[in-house]
Amino acid sequence: MRITKITYGEAPIASQISNAVIDFSRMTVSIVAVHSDLVVDGEPVVGYGFHSNGRYAQSGLLSTRILPRVEDASPERLLDPSTGIVDPVRVQQAVMENEKPGGHGDRAVAVGTLDMAMWDLAAKAAGEPLYRLLHERFGLREQPASSVWVYAAGGYYHPDKPLQALRDEIRGYLDLGYRDVKIKIGGAPLEEDLRRIETVLHLLPSGCRLAVDANGRFGVEEALRYGRALAAYDLLWYEEPCDPLDYRTHAVLADEYAGALATGENLFSAADVRNLRRHGGLRPHRDVLQMDPSLSYGVPEYAAMLRELASGGWSPGRLCPHGGNQINLALAAAFGLGGCESYPKVFEPFGGFAESTPVTDGYVGLPEEPGIGIELKPALRDLLRERL
Amino acid sequence: MRITKITYGEAPIASQISNAVIDFSRMTVSIVAVHSDLVVDGEPVVGYGFHSNGRYAQSGLLSTRILPRVEDASPERLLDPSTGIVDPVRVQQAVMENEKPGGHGDRAVAVGTLDMAMWDLAAKAAGEPLYRLLHERFGLREQPASSVWVYAAGGYYHPDKPLQALRDEIRGYLDLGYRDVKIKIGGAPLEEDLRRIETVLHLLPSGCRLAVDANGRFGVEEALRYGRALAAYDLLWYEEPCDPLDYRTHAVLADEYAGALATGENLFSAADVRNLRRHGGLRPHRDVLQMDPSLSYGVPEYAAMLRELASGGWSPGRLCPHGGNQINLALAAAFGLGGCESYPKVFEPFGGFAESTPVTDGYVGLPEEPGIGIELKPALRDLLRERL
Repeated sequence: MRITKITYGEAPIASQISNAVIDFSRMTVSIVAVHSDLVVDGEPVVGYGFHSNGRYAQSGLLSTRILPRVEDASPERLLDPSTGIVDPVRVQQAVMENEKPGGHGDRAVAVGTLDMAMWDLAAKAAGEPLYRLLHERFGLREQPASSVWVYAAGGYYHPDKPLQALRDEIRGYLDLGYRDVKIKIGGAPLEEDLRRIETVLHLLPSGCRLAVDANGRFGVEEALRYGRALAAYDLLWYEEPCDPLDYRTHAVLADEYAGALATGENLFSAADVRNLRRHGGLRPHRDVLQMDPSLSYGVPEYAAMLRELASGGWSPGRLCPHGGNQINLALAAAFGLGGCESYPKVFEPFGGFAESTPVTDGYVGLPEEPGIGIELKPALRDLLRERL
Repeated sequence: MRITKITYGEAPIASQISNAVIDFSRMTVSIVAVHSDLVVDGEPVVGYGFHSNGRYAQSGLLSTRILPRVEDASPERLLDPSTGIVDPVRVQQAVMENEKPGGHGDRAVAVGTLDMAMWDLAAKAAGEPLYRLLHERFGLREQPASSVWVYAAGGYYHPDKPLQALRDEIRGYLDLGYRDVKIKIGGAPLEEDLRRIETVLHLLPSGCRLAVDANGRFGVEEALRYGRALAAYDLLWYEEPCDPLDYRTHAVLADEYAGALATGENLFSAADVRNLRRHGGLRPHRDVLQMDPSLSYGVPEYAAMLRELASGGWSPGRLCPHGGNQINLALAAAFGLGGCESYPKVFEPFGGFAESTPVTDGYVGLPEEPGIGIELKPALRDLLRERL
């Protein structure tokens, strides 16, 4: 098996939503296709990748640094010698050569995007769904899950009829099969945010949970003030209370706020996650970590994060990746994660799961199609085929 | 005053050197020119910027994210209302809109490169050398320095006749007017590195100091082992012993190693520097911090780092930026930093200072030419004018 070419492009992942920090109307996403000479059913096998919303497309880094290193590597170096199939772990080692330590930002997105395409290619070449390939490749002992808990991330600020529109939005998620939902906070005064929370709690059926997300907006005092107010509700978690790198504020809040905290979607390396573990004061039996491989150098780095966290007593069940896309569903099933995020109806066609695996009682099943399952999302498949 | 266009490109900053982590044979640098409608001496004023070595060029981020935000901003928003001259602090605020917190990597380089060009433009428009403009813009009370301490960073591994070539290299720095020098460690076994250190110490004149740089290569055990061996010498500092984000190893080493430690060139934001201050255990009366504005969102972020460090008892005199270029010389003079790095004869024409201000007894004077002083380096001026 040989990689014959790698094509890339950008697509809008624009949305009219905004969170407490940025608006998404100009958000873009990188898309990548890794073409091979392996023919299955008369067609050369192609692996597709993209990255999650929230960080911009990376054509420049892909074209000038990342892809040339794949082209320059000897083809054998990129293969698993025992199977002859491309090994994304070896690819990641090749593309990170001559990169200095530190500075884990856009580079992590470019590498993570390519990594997704490499896993899609490898799983298709092996004729396996990605979650089974990941389970084997990383030598995991627990059986992979056959379905994964997901929650609907939304709860945006609606300028017109804010509470009515919020109710309509949340009811829509319940109608789609979700049980648990997340809404934004921090984009309005506390009292208004509390009304939003109570509005959603009143309409959620028994057993459904609500999480809230401040998108890293608060300083320590505001984070504590919100924490005191949020303690009155039985929330699923209180997400990104402060700057993702402000470990001490996390630690102060974890001492004061008895409920679960969640963070990590804006940490892009095992080195940063190690610092969160060491200095962030989070509680391995309660809190939730949301790192996202497509923004963070891909699955090999995610596996390094899991090893790092295990040394501090964190089980994979406390992890729930940001991103709302299919590779994270496969990752969650393979590694026994607690679940993964979902963004119903936004960031389409990149977000969401296979049409053959609808959300049912808050869970999504794992498709058995070889690869990530992109071909089971026809709009996404068509976009990637046309542009790459 | 209006910005009429911004042009950008890339240039090789290739060198045959390598440190303990990467080789520099494919290293590139972004170059930027900000053109204005302000005419001085019959020519429109142009500001030039580039970034320091060690991180790659950023054409993609500049073209897709950073420069469009300058173009989209209302022209007045980018000016200092009291002078009508472009204000790089306001420019930086405009270009960071719709960027999420965390992920301080390549984005910091792209913004830092543009920032350098904006300061060159602003200082030329004001008819002032940059160090005086910075001194005024940030309201600094201490008089700016008229010359700045610099040291020669080199001491590379020479494959042929290693010790003789090292002696020749260091003698060359002394002949150029440097007093203090830095050599690489960590690219050879400890015993060989100690022979290199002793070789240099034997030829340095009385009063000259030697620093050593491991480029972030060591784990905690090796960092400690080197520290025990280095304690036998009166070194200027022991630089980047470990991964730049491994704050705990810095703290462990600071407890054990009595000499000065240096780090920070691979931290690219005030948020990361705050974590180093909080968790790195470094000693404000002894250790040295080397953040580099052209890799770190530019001077406004550097000023934020200084404010953050001051809250922990760090004086500007403990800072000594990586980079070896003219903007850091101006910064050191304006903010009263301890000095700045220099790379004699490598990374040309980007590295080094004005031809009119040679190194004398380890100090470099500040030119009074308006701007950064790029026009006083003809090879650099010509390269930038031709390509932009």
